This record gives sequence, C-alpha cells and structure tokens, in this order.
Amino acid sequence: MTAPFADRLASAVREKRSPCCIGLDPRPEWLPSEIRSTLAVRPTAASIARALERFHTRILERIAPIVPIVKPQLAFFEQLGSAGVAAYEDLVERARRLGLLVLADAKRADIGTTSEAYARAFLGGGSVEGAEISPPAADAMTVQPYMGSDSLEPFVEACDRRAVGVFVLVKTSNPGSAELQELRCGERRVCDHVAEMVARLGRTRVGASGYSPVGAVVGATHPSDLAPLRAAMPHAVLLLPGYGAQGAKADDVVGAFDARAGGALVVAARSVNFAYRRSDGAEDRDWEGSIERAARDMNASVAAALERAGKPLR
Amino acid sequence: MTAPFADRLASAVREKRSPCCIGLDPRPEWLPSEIRSTLAVRPTAASIARALERFHTRILERIAPIVPIVKPQLAFFEQLGSAGVAAYEDLVERARRLGLLVLADAKRADIGTTSEAYARAFLGGGSVEGAEISPPAADAMTVQPYMGSDSLEPFVEACDRRAVGVFVLVKTSNPGSAELQELRCGERRVCDHVAEMVARLGRTRVGASGYSPVGAVVGATHPSDLAPLRAAMPHAVLLLPGYGAQGAKADDVVGAFDARAGGALVVAARSVNFAYRRSDGAEDRDWEGSIERAARDMNASVAAALERAGKPLR
Repeated sequence: MTAPFADRLASAVREKRSPCCIGLDPRPEWLPSEIRSTLAVRPTAASIARALERFHTRILERIAPIVPIVKPQLAFFEQLGSAGVAAYEDLVERARRLGLLVLADAKRADIGTTSEAYARAFLGGGSVEGAEISPPAADAMTVQPYMGSDSLEPFVEACDRRAVGVFVLVKTSNPGSAELQELRCGERRVCDHVAEMVARLGRTRVGASGYSPVGAVVGATHPSDLAPLRAAMPHAVLLLPGYGAQGAKADDVVGAFDARAGGALVVAARSVNFAYRRSDGAEDRDWEGSIERAARDMNASVAAALERAGKPLR
Repeated sequence: MTAPFADRLASAVREKRSPCCIGLDPRPEWLPSEIRSTLAVRPTAASIARALERFHTRILERIAPIVPIVKPQLAFFEQLGSAGVAAYEDLVERARRLGLLVLADAKRADIGTTSEAYARAFLGGGSVEGAEISPPAADAMTVQPYMGSDSLEPFVEACDRRAVGVFVLVKTSNPGSAELQELRCGERRVCDHVAEMVARLGRTRVGASGYSPVGAVVGATHPSDLAPLRAAMPHAVLLLPGYGAQGAKADDVVGAFDARAGGALVVAARSVNFAYRRSDGAEDRDWEGSIERAARDMNASVAAALERAGKPLR
C-alpha cells in the first residue's frame, strides 16, 4: 500500500535533503536554442508539445537526484490544447519513473460532482465499466477555495482513497492577493478563514510524519504572514511560491518551517526552469548544467537560511 | 471585425428568443445506450472521447436552432486526459460552425503571466514565431476571483483584443457557497466585494447592447440575491447556474433580468443534457428528441416567468 502523501513527501525531503519544489512552466518562446532548433520553420502546437517533452526529459534527469518534487503549471500545457495536455501526461509519467513526486498546479474547484471529475483528471481513479480511464495521476494538486469546503471535499476524499495530497490557495504570491484575501471579516481576514478550513479538513487525517494531506499555498512574497499561518495550520504542508523571479529570498521563507524544518516546500519556477537565459538575452551553452546549478544553489541557500534560523534540515 | 461578446450574445438571445444556456457535462456513464453500444467491451479514454464526439454532434444539431449558447464543463473532458480535451476542441468547432456561442466553463485564474496562458488556452490568440498555436477558441470562459483583480486582468485584456467574454464567480450555486462568499467584511459580504470588482472591470467596456464583456456567475439557487447583485453590476451579463437538477425554477431567476429582459443567461446542464434518463433508470428511446424537448420546455418556462414578472423577451 502506498504511504500517505505527506509521509512520502517528508521521506523524500529527508532523502534529498531539500525542501525545494521546482515549478515547470514551459514557455515555448523560452526553450533553449538547442531544443528550439528542432522545431519546424512553422511550428504547430503538436511540434511544440514534442519539443517540450524533449526539454522535460532532459531537465527531469538532472533535477530528480536533487529535489523531492516538481510542480508542472497546467496553464502552459493547456495553451497548446490537447497536444500540450499529452506533453503534461508524458511529464507526469517520466517524473514519477525518476522517483520525483509530482504536484499538478491546476488550481481547480467547482460544485461537488464537477470537483469529483477534476480530482479524477489530476489524481486518478476514474473508471468506466470496470476499465481504468484516467490520465497519469499526479501525487497532489492545487485547488481554489472560493466556492467553499463542499467544493473541496471531493479532492480530500481522493486524498483518503488514493494517498494523494491537495494544496488549497490561502494567501497567494501575486501583488493583488490582498484585494480579497486580506479583507477583514470581524477579527480575521478572509485568508485566515480559509486557513481554518484547511486546518479543519486536515485535522483528522494526520499521518506518521505529523502532516495531513491537506496543504496550503502561502506566497513566500509575504514573509510576515508565514509564521502566523504556520501556527493556524499546524498539520498542513505549506507550499511557498514566489522564491526567485517573484522576489522572495531564502531568509524570507524560514517562518513557514516548524522546529523540525518540516512541513514546507519552497517553490522556484522561472529562476530554475529557465536558469540558462541570461539577463542580456544570451543563453548559457550548457543549459542543462545551468538548471542543475540553479537547483543546487537554491537547495544550499534554503538549507543555510534554515540553519541560521535554528531549524536545520535533518 | 467581430462585434463585442455581449453584443453578439444579445443578438443571439433576440434571434433565438431564448436567454437559456445549455451546460454540456459529458458523463460517460450516462451516455445513451445507442452511443454506449459503440464502445469496445473494454473502453479506453480515447474510445470514450470519440463516443462523446458522436453524442455532441447529435445534441448540437438539435439545440443550435433553439438556444444562443452552450457551456461545456471542462472537468468532464479533462477526466479523460488529452483525448478528452481533443473531444472538447471538437465540440467548440462544431458548436461554432452551427452558429452557437460557446462558454468554456473552466473556472481558471492564477498569477498574471499564468492567467495569460489560460486566456490563450480557452480564448485563443497564442502564437510562436508568427504561427498561431492555440486550440479552437471559445467565445467566453469562467474565472475564479480569489487571487484578486490582477489575476483577472489578462482575461479582460483578451476580451478587449479578441471580442470575447469572461464570467467571474461571484455567488455560486452550491450549498457551501455561503462559507466564504457570505462572510461579512464591514458593511458588505465577500461576494459584494467581488461584484464591485466585476462592475469596475466592466465599466469602461460597455458595448452597444448596454453590457460589458465582464460578466458574473450568480447561482439561480439564491433567488433573493439576484436583484441586488443585478443592481450592483448594472453592465454585467449574469450567468445563472442551478436551474433544473440543482433545484432552481423559472420564477426564481427573473430578478436577475433587467427591465429589457436582457443581461442574464439561465443555465441548465443535467436536466437537458441527460433529459432522456428517466427517474426509474430507464431511457427514452428517442433520446435526442428528449433533449430537444427539455430545451424547448426550458425556453417556454423562462419566457413565461419573464412575462409574469413584467419583463417580456423582445
């Protein structure tokens, strides 16, 4: 039997000595020239999707020994239509074969029966007349809280049945996140109410690692929010986007970690995924080496910051 | 040049004399036996996706003369992976060829550059090295407000550039919608703040019909909310899910319409899409006729309710 998601994640973080998650946001226009040169003169969605598969095959082999988990961003696959979604499916299978956990950054949610279909789309388990018909399943996915906890329950039920995880948007990394998320409703902000929802859904589901499969997205771009939200959701793994290109630094994220240096994942996307692109528009010839180095540098920076904060990785 | 989305919608509503939108939520297990019998003994995602294409070809021909717009629910396609997304693309092309408007019920949103990719995925306009690479574009899509207006701006910019529309979740039809959406922040609820965001994004974009491309989702299951939210968003087309299987009746929705009987779309999904399934589990032999009849009955019920409310369709 598969161990619960949070326990599998905790093991992988220990094994790789890294609480870092690499976001994969495949922008066709930013592919390295070695890969771009394989495209036809007049690219099609299908030819770009195949180029993405080549790109990811090479990246995943480099980062699989270094980090526990990758986070493909569905939007960048879906913009290529069904061909792009096939490239996403290829990525999920490759990453899992390499021992990486996969977090589908899909940010879905809808009324109950529709959320059930989204859970099958990203976390598996669909069947028709006894035949499995789901695409390759990720280990976890991100979800939207606006519709309320009945819209999230189908995802949480998938966690119970299939040992997967879910990350609920609580406080996002974008500049406009305050607009709704920090509205004050009595004593608390909207995002504090969502944090309570996350804590409630996770409370009865805590595994051997001390964490539940119901995690939370909390932008690393809001350092002062991290410790209070950590305290409000003691059993939630916090996913911290915003490191690197969005501006957050390693010392900004330490508040999200508990005393055991567990329960949080720092996410970098562009700054690792496209590390070979220099600020002057030129490109490192050893593009794979640049990606690997950026991932190793991120690991080292986060480990050093945790050490300074008295929460060393173990 | 294509007319703005809200103007195209207003024309189609007048022409068909119907403010009804049919939701297409393809559940493989509910396909009519005539279509199910074409599946192999052991169905695959690809064989089911082809069955969905046959199903939709037949449905769309029946409902195209009757209603202005259809709303495919992405979750039910995505649960079949890339094969299902290809079936969605097929549906979009067929529906548009038949003169139907298409509203992609995708409920997406993310940080700005990711929302741009989602806008390209559903509303078109993506290109790489001068070649168009987007999948078939819908006329409009649904989006999530939780991340704030900077996460919605890329969709609104697509409205400006491509004469498409966007519907922001304001007050959803599910039982748990109150949990966040009705939290009180000072004088107003969270959903009232989102309504203000919708009104603000639409204000400078009002077309000849009197409506903007920035619409709002307001569940028909909350009749007392409809008139106040209508007043708060005077230029927004309101999309009203919840009619039929979710319990709302024609008289419940009249508050969403303004004095010209414009600016609102009543949505039924299951009660039309699967009208041939009887409560005893049997199936109408003329399944296409049942779907057509359910759509016509819905049109008649909504028109009669609007007449009773003194807002006749013109």
